[in-house]
Amino acid sequence: MADAAAKERKILVAVDESEESSYALSWCIENIITGNCNDTLILLYSIPPRAVYSTLDGTGYLVSSDILATMERYSSEVAQCVMEKAKRACEALNGVKVETIVEHGDARDVICQAAEKLHVDMLVMGSHGYGVIKRAFLGSVSNHCAQNVKCPVLIVKKPKTDGRSK
Amino acid sequence: MADAAAKERKILVAVDESEESSYALSWCIENIITGNCNDTLILLYSIPPRAVYSTLDGTGYLVSSDILATMERYSSEVAQCVMEKAKRACEALNGVKVETIVEHGDARDVICQAAEKLHVDMLVMGSHGYGVIKRAFLGSVSNHCAQNVKCPVLIVKKPKTDGRSK
Repeated sequence: MADAAAKERKILVAVDESEESSYALSWCIENIITGNCNDTLILLYSIPPRAVYSTLDGTGYLVSSDILATMERYSSEVAQCVMEKAKRACEALNGVKVETIVEHGDARDVICQAAEKLHVDMLVMGSHGYGVIKRAFLGSVSNHCAQNVKCPVLIVKKPKTDGRSK
Repeated sequence: MADAAAKERKILVAVDESEESSYALSWCIENIITGNCNDTLILLYSIPPRAVYSTLDGTGYLVSSDILATMERYSSEVAQCVMEKAKRACEALNGVKVETIVEHGDARDVICQAAEKLHVDMLVMGSHGYGVIKRAFLGSVSNHCAQNVKCPVLIVKKPKTDGRSK
């Protein structure tokens, strides 16, 4: 068991602005990383691709480049904010290396490609892992990753605290 | 971190006769259980429901009760064999409590119900977790469980060793 504890592991955690993602990171820190100082924790955030911002809004009006620039700046600020929060959650992990990666692209592709490229030992994510995705699609990103990523995938759901089962 | 290591956790591992399931259990032992003597590891095997054995075979001939009895005996023997193998894999885990459960039913229902009923902290399974399921449906059981079980779900895939990427 001592051998296993000394193993160097790379653990990729997909983070976003959701509470579910934040919970997944905390759960991972408490249950997976604990006690293993040889782990490297890689925090990954994906900024939705530019194509999401159409140059035409819903009414057909052209969205000015100023507005597009503002939206991109906003996306970068959100990314920075999410990463700062995630890094603070990792502060108690003495000895564990924490790295951060911010990529542009669809969360599903970004996560799968990063897991592959970085040869991680494990991928951890909330049950959706995509801040803007609606409840109807909840789970689609984690499902996609669970099917396509070759390493073990841990999907963490935030327990309901309002007492309602649904 | 010492507090977290001392936590009492219940970890449910869905086992079956596949190599993938065997790998998932080994990976869990090495990466999740290691060093935490307060864990309880619950090994769960589900025997496919009796309805799977139709009383009519493919050619319309009635399958005798003798054959049905033989098939049921075979199922029980497989279950016993899988459990013995799984328990042997856990032998190195000094101090960790190992429990075994064998249930009749569809793997998806059995796993989800057990996770709920036993209030486990984590569910671990191979990427299919259903020995007889074909490659076309690979992942359906783990997908179903990942969507329906409330606790964190770890899906472990067996790495390919033949050098082919597909």
